[in-house]
Amino acid sequence: MKLKAALVQMAVTSDKRANLETAATYASEAAEAGADLVVLPEMFNCPYSNDSFPIYAEPEGGESHQFLSKLAARLGIWLVAGSIPERTKDGKLYNTSFVFDRRGRQVAKHSKMHLFDIDIEGGQRFKESDTLSPGSQITVFETEFGRIGLAICYDLRFPELARMMVDQGAKILVVPAAFNMTTGPAHWEILFRNRALDNQAYVLGVAPARDVNGPYVSYGHSLAVSPWGDVVEMLEAAPGMILAELDLDYVDKVRRELPLLQHRRHDIYTLKQCGL
Amino acid sequence: MKLKAALVQMAVTSDKRANLETAATYASEAAEAGADLVVLPEMFNCPYSNDSFPIYAEPEGGESHQFLSKLAARLGIWLVAGSIPERTKDGKLYNTSFVFDRRGRQVAKHSKMHLFDIDIEGGQRFKESDTLSPGSQITVFETEFGRIGLAICYDLRFPELARMMVDQGAKILVVPAAFNMTTGPAHWEILFRNRALDNQAYVLGVAPARDVNGPYVSYGHSLAVSPWGDVVEMLEAAPGMILAELDLDYVDKVRRELPLLQHRRHDIYTLKQCGL
Repeated sequence: MKLKAALVQMAVTSDKRANLETAATYASEAAEAGADLVVLPEMFNCPYSNDSFPIYAEPEGGESHQFLSKLAARLGIWLVAGSIPERTKDGKLYNTSFVFDRRGRQVAKHSKMHLFDIDIEGGQRFKESDTLSPGSQITVFETEFGRIGLAICYDLRFPELARMMVDQGAKILVVPAAFNMTTGPAHWEILFRNRALDNQAYVLGVAPARDVNGPYVSYGHSLAVSPWGDVVEMLEAAPGMILAELDLDYVDKVRRELPLLQHRRHDIYTLKQCGL
Repeated sequence: MKLKAALVQMAVTSDKRANLETAATYASEAAEAGADLVVLPEMFNCPYSNDSFPIYAEPEGGESHQFLSKLAARLGIWLVAGSIPERTKDGKLYNTSFVFDRRGRQVAKHSKMHLFDIDIEGGQRFKESDTLSPGSQITVFETEFGRIGLAICYDLRFPELARMMVDQGAKILVVPAAFNMTTGPAHWEILFRNRALDNQAYVLGVAPARDVNGPYVSYGHSLAVSPWGDVVEMLEAAPGMILAELDLDYVDKVRRELPLLQHRRHDIYTLKQCGL
């Protein structure tokens, strides 16, 4: 079985409405090209800065949420709506990705569970936890193509999370993300390739296009990686879209020929979700 | 604090005594160059084949073991003696790495705990478990430079093991290994780089030189990777030796600036050694 995925590396501006329209334009183009699944970047409706998150934040069911739900329904696509700053009823802010099915129903929601707090000498400094709260759910959702796992950016740094999504049946991992110009060149590609390789799953990374005048300069380089660890396709820094065909039978083949997941020594070590 | 490591990518022949002498020649050269730690490749005294393992196998304390212990003592080096086929008292065979300190005392011993059973269409086929039994110990040993973790080849495929060695205090992971011409070009470099990156530790991979006429064609490409995921140095296929300086303070710096190990969500997931 094959799934056609569209990875939307869009330019993100400070105009929320314009960002939503840009996303819609790419999604329409993707749907016309036969895409089953469209993925938007992390914080695609909002500048990536602690100053902006509270201003752009919306509740579940707010303007962006409604827009995206209708978009998915109108185009008949699965939509992993990148992420947006979400404000919950208790006033907390989260970096949240909503997932809509072909009828526009929200079928999953992932809030970034590892917050990006980094301070590199002569490099990037960012403290996401100044404004955001961390999610606490591992997110896997069911589609007619099988299960898909969802994580956001820094979540991908933690092999435990990818492993658990795969143990919950995911054959595809979708990761809206925005690496920077320090960690991007150093780590982006090998991280995505290695998560794919270790877990023998397709892994999709979708970043905003680079804006050197923005508050946070995204590395871009949206990419699709195969379960063998090969880069299927990768963009550079400019806006663009990848249309990648993901072959779920190939996932099964790789897992059969090199049975890494079966070869784990569950008698020696165990990785578990707490409280289960 | 800095440690000088020598990675010996030696040619392995069917003559056990000659292999030991080759290892000694490299080790002497390394010691003269100031090496603190010398690492030999996987199955360095024996052709890499299920036919050869039973024939070349020795008990702990056998010919190779004695030779290597004396070598370490004579040169005053830490010696991670690659691996050899070990026969235990119950007649089982293991792929075992012995570690000797500067006085020639065996301070650690790791038996490969994930056995390499692979069958890739049009590519590599090998079933190590036809002759070998798997070890069941996670191996970390103490030196004056701090703790060093030890795994063998296919063990590196499993992020759980690297994680646990690091949780037991390892800042350097040493991996005698022998990837083949299918998995080597596809996975060798990104696997080593990613384990280093995820765990913010130096990772050393030491392979036999390539022998296209041997029973198993090693990819070679012995390499040292930094805790930031950079390749410090990498060989190609020919025999050779890397002398790499490992800066343990740099490990601490990387772990401080990008605190991945601290950012794990121990409240959401837990990785544990069974029975502890």
